[in-house]
Amino acid sequence: MASDSGYGIFSLPGETPRVGLRVGDQVVDVAAALGDEVFRQPTLNPFLASGRRRWDRTREALTDLSSLARYLVPLAEVTLHLPIEVADFVDFYSSLEHAANAGRILRPGEEPLKPNWRHLPVGYHGRAGTVVVSGTPVRRPWGQRVGPAGAAPLFAPSGRLDFEAEVGFVVGAGSSLGQPVPLSAFRDHVFGAVLLIDWSARDIQAWEYVPLGPFLGKSFATSISAWVVPLDQLSAALVAPVDQEPPPLPYLADPAWALDLRLAVALNGHVVSRPGFRSMYWTADQQLAHLTSNGASLRTGDLYGSGTVSGTDPSEYGSLLELSWNGQRPLSLPDGSRRTYLEDGDTVTISATVGDTDIQLGEVSGTIQPALPL
Amino acid sequence: MASDSGYGIFSLPGETPRVGLRVGDQVVDVAAALGDEVFRQPTLNPFLASGRRRWDRTREALTDLSSLARYLVPLAEVTLHLPIEVADFVDFYSSLEHAANAGRILRPGEEPLKPNWRHLPVGYHGRAGTVVVSGTPVRRPWGQRVGPAGAAPLFAPSGRLDFEAEVGFVVGAGSSLGQPVPLSAFRDHVFGAVLLIDWSARDIQAWEYVPLGPFLGKSFATSISAWVVPLDQLSAALVAPVDQEPPPLPYLADPAWALDLRLAVALNGHVVSRPGFRSMYWTADQQLAHLTSNGASLRTGDLYGSGTVSGTDPSEYGSLLELSWNGQRPLSLPDGSRRTYLEDGDTVTISATVGDTDIQLGEVSGTIQPALPL
Repeated sequence: MASDSGYGIFSLPGETPRVGLRVGDQVVDVAAALGDEVFRQPTLNPFLASGRRRWDRTREALTDLSSLARYLVPLAEVTLHLPIEVADFVDFYSSLEHAANAGRILRPGEEPLKPNWRHLPVGYHGRAGTVVVSGTPVRRPWGQRVGPAGAAPLFAPSGRLDFEAEVGFVVGAGSSLGQPVPLSAFRDHVFGAVLLIDWSARDIQAWEYVPLGPFLGKSFATSISAWVVPLDQLSAALVAPVDQEPPPLPYLADPAWALDLRLAVALNGHVVSRPGFRSMYWTADQQLAHLTSNGASLRTGDLYGSGTVSGTDPSEYGSLLELSWNGQRPLSLPDGSRRTYLEDGDTVTISATVGDTDIQLGEVSGTIQPALPL
Repeated sequence: MASDSGYGIFSLPGETPRVGLRVGDQVVDVAAALGDEVFRQPTLNPFLASGRRRWDRTREALTDLSSLARYLVPLAEVTLHLPIEVADFVDFYSSLEHAANAGRILRPGEEPLKPNWRHLPVGYHGRAGTVVVSGTPVRRPWGQRVGPAGAAPLFAPSGRLDFEAEVGFVVGAGSSLGQPVPLSAFRDHVFGAVLLIDWSARDIQAWEYVPLGPFLGKSFATSISAWVVPLDQLSAALVAPVDQEPPPLPYLADPAWALDLRLAVALNGHVVSRPGFRSMYWTADQQLAHLTSNGASLRTGDLYGSGTVSGTDPSEYGSLLELSWNGQRPLSLPDGSRRTYLEDGDTVTISATVGDTDIQLGEVSGTIQPALPL
């Protein structure tokens, strides 16, 4: 079952959405195959809430494809829906290369990394209500940005619309308020992973983000794949984490979830970057331990993004901010056009393979619609 | 019905939680009185989602107290629950006095207000999953903070635990992704108001917040009142908004929802501050218009906080950061003790009256529990 790539929510014409398991270009109708109410739901949340033992038993029950033949539906015939009802959405900033590039571009002349960066996985809360499933069009946002020198700010459609290529982690089982979740309990809480596009309006963000962080520059949309790949499918990609210097505090020590996920970012079908997730400085289990270290509780459907995945080479940069160096080095596309930031009609697609296996994470894609008229 | 102070979720011993309307020291069992499924629910969300017409009709149906006598339950006998399932939680920063004080204290020597502050209501997303109802104990969080000069950061219980006194607004009817909600549509979307305590660990916040804003310094808990007061009950407090200079951009122009709400903040039963909400620079309708100006959609249960309510006089400061000037001027309490920040066992309570009426917003209160042992 090597090409299995996760659980999602699908529907056929005239039928209600329910849980499916993708197997290559087929979808197992899990509700029909296992006959359980928890799969006859329009989100994965009830299944996710049922806990790790149930996740494992379900996987076992779905391993014998031959017995499932009559429950297979061609992928091409189904409509895919947002797989989870997102509870809280947190976005981290855990690639050293991305954070350093962003610092160099946005705060030239200063030390690129802030003093806290190597001590904790910097993150912030994003808008859960505007997380959309892959394929949903993304409307270019209006927003405030800096005006001409000395003049008032403008309110206009964003002129610097960007993507950030990320991996997202989905919480299945919640936790109690006041009780931190240690690194060692990662698998008891996190169900699986998605690919994620953190759409970012750089001009809105640059004006608004001091001192309380990104808000409207990010909150108009975040896209995730339609398929959530369970952790057991990712274990083939487990690798040694990168060295952390200085060594992290004890509550962040000894991470186990560095993953060799190999991303490809395509702009209008042309691959513009191949970021490698294994170079991330902070890992998903460290992020979860940090997120809950103050006693903040987890809920089923919590989603957290890794932050932009960028490598050291420009061919591994996970955002146009870095790929075009904030517009100074336009990209050339095969059709002869050039890009600094996204244009209306552009389509961004992120795909990824799990290490050197043939397991694919569900791809995530979005196309830019023109801003609303005034 | 002048002392009516809002809708909430109550239960009696052995019964399931359902919608109640508070009338002084009584609670109307709304489900029993109106016999409708939408009130026989453990959160207000289904009622909120039903829209403004239904909110108005319900108020009308509940105005004749004499006909409701047999549906009254003494407030003292009920258990109160979190009234809403919080969708997204946003926290603003809209008191000029608070923002200027925070700037002076946290960034001495710099201009206290950032260049964007007078052009937009600065805000950020907080953690929806840790919003708790008034009366829920608040555990002192552990977290990273700056270590001694030149040394590594510490991980320890917060030593600078604070409150921020705020007013929160609850979204009833949602909106469509991509469609901004103008100021004029405020009443079609916002159902009512609560009082809110934004618990803040200043030492954790100071170390983590650059460049992406507050995260674990705030995410461990946010408390709200058990009663949501509908907007029609607040209209007695409508006042002229403060002058805004420079004039706001057109999408933020002509606010109508400046409110004369008179807060009182008590520490262990002793009033330490009386912030006036009417002095807020940005109003609730401006906050909603800004929040959606990029096309971000609203959902039933969205909650947004005003930001700390502070006036010009120290007797009107809405946080210990300001009241103790970051610990430099300890407060004296009637029992002879002094406070810079909160100690274990301290209880913070915020109450408020609607203008010079006898309408009270539901109070919000929380008591600090000691940090977990290591």
